[in-house]
Amino acid sequence: MPTTIAELDTPAVLIDIDRVEANLRRAQAHATAEGYALRPHIKTHKLPKFALRAVELGAVGITAQKIGEAEVMADAGVTDIFLPYNIVGAQKLARLKALNGRVTLSVTADSAATVAGLAATFTAERPLTVLVECDTGAGRCGVQSPAAAAELAQQIARAPGLRFGGLMTYPKVHAREASNAWLAAAKEACEAVGLTVPRVSAGNSPDMWAPQAAPVTERRPGTYIYYDRSQVKAGAASLDDCALTVLATVVSRPTPTRFVIDAGSKAITSDLIGMEGYGLVMGTPHTIRSLSEEHGVVEMAEPSETPRVGDRVRIIPNHACVVSNLYDEVHLISGDAVTETLPVAARGRSD
Amino acid sequence: MPTTIAELDTPAVLIDIDRVEANLRRAQAHATAEGYALRPHIKTHKLPKFALRAVELGAVGITAQKIGEAEVMADAGVTDIFLPYNIVGAQKLARLKALNGRVTLSVTADSAATVAGLAATFTAERPLTVLVECDTGAGRCGVQSPAAAAELAQQIARAPGLRFGGLMTYPKVHAREASNAWLAAAKEACEAVGLTVPRVSAGNSPDMWAPQAAPVTERRPGTYIYYDRSQVKAGAASLDDCALTVLATVVSRPTPTRFVIDAGSKAITSDLIGMEGYGLVMGTPHTIRSLSEEHGVVEMAEPSETPRVGDRVRIIPNHACVVSNLYDEVHLISGDAVTETLPVAARGRSD
Repeated sequence: MPTTIAELDTPAVLIDIDRVEANLRRAQAHATAEGYALRPHIKTHKLPKFALRAVELGAVGITAQKIGEAEVMADAGVTDIFLPYNIVGAQKLARLKALNGRVTLSVTADSAATVAGLAATFTAERPLTVLVECDTGAGRCGVQSPAAAAELAQQIARAPGLRFGGLMTYPKVHAREASNAWLAAAKEACEAVGLTVPRVSAGNSPDMWAPQAAPVTERRPGTYIYYDRSQVKAGAASLDDCALTVLATVVSRPTPTRFVIDAGSKAITSDLIGMEGYGLVMGTPHTIRSLSEEHGVVEMAEPSETPRVGDRVRIIPNHACVVSNLYDEVHLISGDAVTETLPVAARGRSD
Repeated sequence: MPTTIAELDTPAVLIDIDRVEANLRRAQAHATAEGYALRPHIKTHKLPKFALRAVELGAVGITAQKIGEAEVMADAGVTDIFLPYNIVGAQKLARLKALNGRVTLSVTADSAATVAGLAATFTAERPLTVLVECDTGAGRCGVQSPAAAAELAQQIARAPGLRFGGLMTYPKVHAREASNAWLAAAKEACEAVGLTVPRVSAGNSPDMWAPQAAPVTERRPGTYIYYDRSQVKAGAASLDDCALTVLATVVSRPTPTRFVIDAGSKAITSDLIGMEGYGLVMGTPHTIRSLSEEHGVVEMAEPSETPRVGDRVRIIPNHACVVSNLYDEVHLISGDAVTETLPVAARGRSD
C-alpha cells in the first residue's frame, strides 16, 4: 500500500483525517450545546468507519438515503438508522422489513399510497416508525400543507404495523424561519387530532451553525464531514476545513495559460450547484473552466511556466458527496502520509 | 436473476440489446462504405462484450481513455487498443509498459515532456507507437500548430523505443472542415521533414455520418453504441435509437403537476451538456427539471393523475457515458425481457 501521497496513482480521492475529526467534533459540540439531536447523513462519505465515529462522538444514529446504504451500515454495526425516503415497491418493502428486524429503523412517507404499502408490509409484532415528510419550501417531496401532514399522520397512526414518528423536512437552504413556522403549524395540527409528535427532523450543512429553534428536535447534515466549495460559499466552513480533495496530474500544457489535468467529469462530476467552474485548484486562485469525461481544463489569468506536465495538484470539488460516489476506494491522509485506504463500502448502493 | 424488467429494483440501467446491435452494425456499414477504419471508444459502455462485438463486426480495434479500462479490455481478449491520452508519471508508465507487452498498443503525446517519459520507458525491443495529439479547435489538449506537430513527431521518431504512429485529434463538434485542413497541414509538415504519417485519427459520434474526407483514416466514436439526448440533439440519431435508459420508480406526487422519481444526480448525473433538463421521460414530453442526489423532480405542463406513486418510468439521459460510470451492473433487455445482467467491468477504472 502506498504510504505517501506521492506514491498514489491519479486521479485519487484524499480524505484529510485530521480535518474529518475536527469537523465531526465541532458539529457534535454545537448540537450538544444547542440541545438538538445530531443524525448525520452518510450519503457524503458512505464509509462505516465515519458513521461509527460520529455515533461514538454523540450522534443519536445516522441518516441514509437508500436501503442499500442502510444495509451496509447495519452490517457494520450501526444500530439506529433513519431513511427519510418514500419506500415504494415490492422489492424495496421486502428489504425494508428485513432491515427493521435488525436495527432501530425509521422512514418517511408523503402520500397515502406510500403509507398503504408500508401498512401492508409491517405488523404490530415489529412495527415500523414512519415520519411524515413535509414540503416546507424546497419544492421536492412532501405533503403540501400542515393539514395534509396531520391527515397523513392519522393514517399512519391507525395502521397496526406502523407508528407515527413525527415530522421531517428537507428545508430550503437559508430559509429556516419559514420552514420552522410550517413545521410548528403541522405539529399543532397533529396534536389537535390527539397525536403526539415525538420527533421533528430537519437540517442541512449550509445552515448547520444556526441556533436551535422549535419545533425542530433533530438535524441531518451530511456534507459537513468533508465540506466542499459550495459549503464554503454558503458560509458553513472555510477552505481550510475541506477534507476531501481529488489528487490529479497535469497531463498537458497546450498554451502558456492553459493546463489540463487527468480529472474530468468521471473524477469530480459536472455538478455546478451554483458555482463558477467545476472545482478549485487547492492553494491557487484557479478553477476548472471546462470538463470532459477524462480531462479538466484550467485557464490561468496570466501566462505561467508552472504547473509543468507531471506536476500534481489537488482539487477541492464543488460537491463532495457526488465525488465519493464515483470511487471504489478513498485514501485517508494525515499531512503527506497515507494512513489507510478504505473501500467506499456503500458506493453504488443506489437501490 | 430477474427475467423481466418489472422484476428489477430501481434505479437500474437498461440496455436495449437490439438497438445496440443495430447501432453497431449501422456504424460499421458506414465505415466500410466510406473507407475509413472504425475504432470505437469503449468509455461509453465499459463492457468487454460490446468491445469484442464491435471488433467482430469489423472495427480495427478499440479506443480506451484510461490504462485501467485498457487493462480490463486486454484481459477480455481485445488485441488492439488505442489510448489517445498523455500518459505521465512513474506508476502509469510502468503499467503502460506491461500492457504494451500484451496487445498492439498506441498512445498519444502533445509535449516534449510526455514524449521524454515514454522514451525513457520503452526500448527498441518492444517499441511503443505514439501519435501526436493536435488541438484542431476543441481547446483541450494538443499541440497548437502543424509546425509543432511535425517537431514533436521528429522527437518521437528519434527515440529508439518509440515509433511515430501519426496524428490524432479530438475535433470540435460540427467543425470538421477546419479540423481536417489543420490535420492536412500537419501531415504535410511531417512529410516535409521526411516522416511517413501512417494514421490520422479523428471523429466523434455527433459527426459520425459525415462522408470520409482526407487526411483522416480512422474515427473513434463512442456514444453511438447507446446514443442519448445530446446525440439526438446533435442530429446523429433519433430517440428510437437510444439504447440506454434508466429505470426509475415514481416515489412522490406532491402536487397535480409534479412527480418525483428515485433517480437523481447519483443515478443519471448532472451533465447538461447544452440540454434543457436532466433527461427525458421516455414516451412523454416531460424532462427532469431538477435533481438532487437521490431525487429527480419532473414538472408537467398540465395537472395529471398519472403517473401514480409506484409507477415506473424510463429516463433517456443527456449523456449515456457518464451514466454507465455510476453503476456496478447493467441489465441487457430485449422487449420486456431481461436477457443478461453484466458487471460494468471497466467502471471505476479511473486511473
